[in-house]
Amino acid sequence: MTDEFETPDGYRILHVEDLAPQIAAIADLRKRLGGAPEAWTAAEISDGNMNAVYRLTGPSGSLIVKQALPYIRVIGEGWPFPVSRIHFEAAAMARQAELAPAHVPALLHRDDGLGLLVMEDLRGHAVVRQALVAGTHFPRLAAHMGEFLARTLFFTSDFHLATPQTSAIEAAFSGNAHLCRTSEDVIFTGPYGEAPYNRVTRGNEAVAAALRGDRDLKRAACEMKLVYRTRSQALLHGDLHTGSVMATATETRVIDAEWAFFGPMGFDIGALVGNLLLSAISQPGHDGARCDRAALSDRLLQTASDVWTHFAECFAALAARAGGELLAPAIYDETSRRAIVADHLRSVFEDMLGFAGAKMIRRIIGISHVEDFELIGDVAVRAERERHALRVARRLLLERRDIAAMDAVRDLVRAEAAGDAGPGR
Amino acid sequence: MTDEFETPDGYRILHVEDLAPQIAAIADLRKRLGGAPEAWTAAEISDGNMNAVYRLTGPSGSLIVKQALPYIRVIGEGWPFPVSRIHFEAAAMARQAELAPAHVPALLHRDDGLGLLVMEDLRGHAVVRQALVAGTHFPRLAAHMGEFLARTLFFTSDFHLATPQTSAIEAAFSGNAHLCRTSEDVIFTGPYGEAPYNRVTRGNEAVAAALRGDRDLKRAACEMKLVYRTRSQALLHGDLHTGSVMATATETRVIDAEWAFFGPMGFDIGALVGNLLLSAISQPGHDGARCDRAALSDRLLQTASDVWTHFAECFAALAARAGGELLAPAIYDETSRRAIVADHLRSVFEDMLGFAGAKMIRRIIGISHVEDFELIGDVAVRAERERHALRVARRLLLERRDIAAMDAVRDLVRAEAAGDAGPGR
Repeated sequence: MTDEFETPDGYRILHVEDLAPQIAAIADLRKRLGGAPEAWTAAEISDGNMNAVYRLTGPSGSLIVKQALPYIRVIGEGWPFPVSRIHFEAAAMARQAELAPAHVPALLHRDDGLGLLVMEDLRGHAVVRQALVAGTHFPRLAAHMGEFLARTLFFTSDFHLATPQTSAIEAAFSGNAHLCRTSEDVIFTGPYGEAPYNRVTRGNEAVAAALRGDRDLKRAACEMKLVYRTRSQALLHGDLHTGSVMATATETRVIDAEWAFFGPMGFDIGALVGNLLLSAISQPGHDGARCDRAALSDRLLQTASDVWTHFAECFAALAARAGGELLAPAIYDETSRRAIVADHLRSVFEDMLGFAGAKMIRRIIGISHVEDFELIGDVAVRAERERHALRVARRLLLERRDIAAMDAVRDLVRAEAAGDAGPGR
Repeated sequence: MTDEFETPDGYRILHVEDLAPQIAAIADLRKRLGGAPEAWTAAEISDGNMNAVYRLTGPSGSLIVKQALPYIRVIGEGWPFPVSRIHFEAAAMARQAELAPAHVPALLHRDDGLGLLVMEDLRGHAVVRQALVAGTHFPRLAAHMGEFLARTLFFTSDFHLATPQTSAIEAAFSGNAHLCRTSEDVIFTGPYGEAPYNRVTRGNEAVAAALRGDRDLKRAACEMKLVYRTRSQALLHGDLHTGSVMATATETRVIDAEWAFFGPMGFDIGALVGNLLLSAISQPGHDGARCDRAALSDRLLQTASDVWTHFAECFAALAARAGGELLAPAIYDETSRRAIVADHLRSVFEDMLGFAGAKMIRRIIGISHVEDFELIGDVAVRAERERHALRVARRLLLERRDIAAMDAVRDLVRAEAAGDAGPGR
């Protein structure tokens, strides 16, 4: 086994001034930017936690260059991280582009040796998480993401493919296991113990300590960790929160697929739904002068609900037409096929709720916090909004087998709005 | 992708007279047999459905040679089958030998090019299935198999290993997917439709037709097919019925691991338990002069029950000592760890019951029947014993979530003894 942290031969960390000469050597990209490389401008626009990201602009156009660093960007060399993740990101993007071409940026070039991806510049698209904080409404988000989820999950699953094909996809992504292990650690384990880098908003220390002593919650989180590790249903994006989606009023694109692996469908859906719930719950903490925060909160609860509904309807429609071996039409009539798909979707729904809950908790008491709360300037208000989210998340984890439908999730969010017992709780 | 049915370069089907020269070329094996190869005797002892098996005997000892044919032996060239299965069998045997050395024959030599394994001759051991028909009792079988199952499943699972390790094992066996696809077909799909080679005992045609029209049953069988395909918990033997176990009164060895893959723990346990139930239910149909068939039947129900109990106890004991990332001792106290393991075992128990039921049905109305019933000379008695097994199997599949423990399985077998409504049912 090779050392997963070894950088490829010839790998070097690029600096902003290296980009023009590097890209100019690739004829297609040079043509796309136009003019002489000396006239191009390069700017670092790194935003996520992991990678260096640049925009390169020439007279004829612009493009985005992403380089995987051999460590986690926001932490530094103290947390080494495999450059090979760029290989898995490119492979996942290629498959997403086949299955849902309207919802991923075009991949223009890759260089696994340098850990480099070059892709379409999504001009006019905003990162959904920050845009929601600013009060933007994305009317097409739920429909687009429901379709993206249904198509990428269905067509890479046993509902569409035969076993040798799903096995081959799973094996092709098995080398990304270091990233899976990191996900397990930061989502399902770290928040519940004394992990380094865990962080809690001032005033919520007692609440966090109570969660860390909550046996029922920890048992549910461990169950979800086991589901994450063992339920091999489809090729996932692997980190599908609202920071991995860029959108306009009419378009929606998914980025940052480096965490891709073959896993439980509910994990991708739960990541998105959980982060939409975080946004909905955070809204009353943000500046109400810019927009009607209560209305936006309601609309986001509806969006979270619609993501699931669109996913489930689209998946069921694809499954109804499926000719694969699993639902062999010679064995199962229409009624049976519908029942089997409904059973599957019910099980995905439960997983989705559990993962949504786990993702919400980890964003509040774990290592990686989110702007939905971080940008609430008043720390007491921020802490109170976080406590609301924690109460909701805990119930999603513990009650996931009993929650009938997305309506009940909405009711639960509203019911828990009133439940705050203050920071000491 | 290479053609999975292409035989390796240099592959040829060996004949009985080729064996001595082939083996004599390997110094260790030559020494083990002793004397001159011309004095060795070779005999074909093929018994299972798949491969050619020979015993080679010299003055100092004997050994077993197994060759994977490029088709299914009992069917012929009309059903091609990948020779690569021998590679996966050897890899699985090597791991079983590490984890449960007392319960596998020693692997002496392998030649992937010829699809050849050479192993220890288990002299004095009987194939358990046939020996049970003959009335033999194996007092150590349940304890040994419970331990074999617990150790091979625990130590290849997330309860012991970290994610990069389980991912690597899973990827290493992903190339055996053609055999998984065949298992799915002959266990979960074929019996419920008009698959070629399906066979039904005279008198049970109407019962088989009723099962093929039974929507609830087919839905349950399809659920188990999905579990088989998507629940990646441990490295399995993959075909652990009573014909894959050889035993004496004091020793127990598992053979024929060519179906190995990374899958649901309940599949291995259910294969063994289901086949022990078939034997128990078949006993009253066999010659009562040789032994007390009612007592043997009771003892086999106890054995099936004890396999589960030994497995569960041994697994829980291993998990209690586990230092792995899943049950991180810094996060979970003893009570929590026990609860998480108990939840897992409950889920494995349900899978086990479902797989046991599916395995029982496929042996009665599918392609591959078993001596437990085939050796009952009186066809009407055989058909009646099979109907008893089918009633039990159907209930295991449909009631798997409600059956509390193995005692209830025993009660269910006894209750269904009285339920026969005759061949027309």
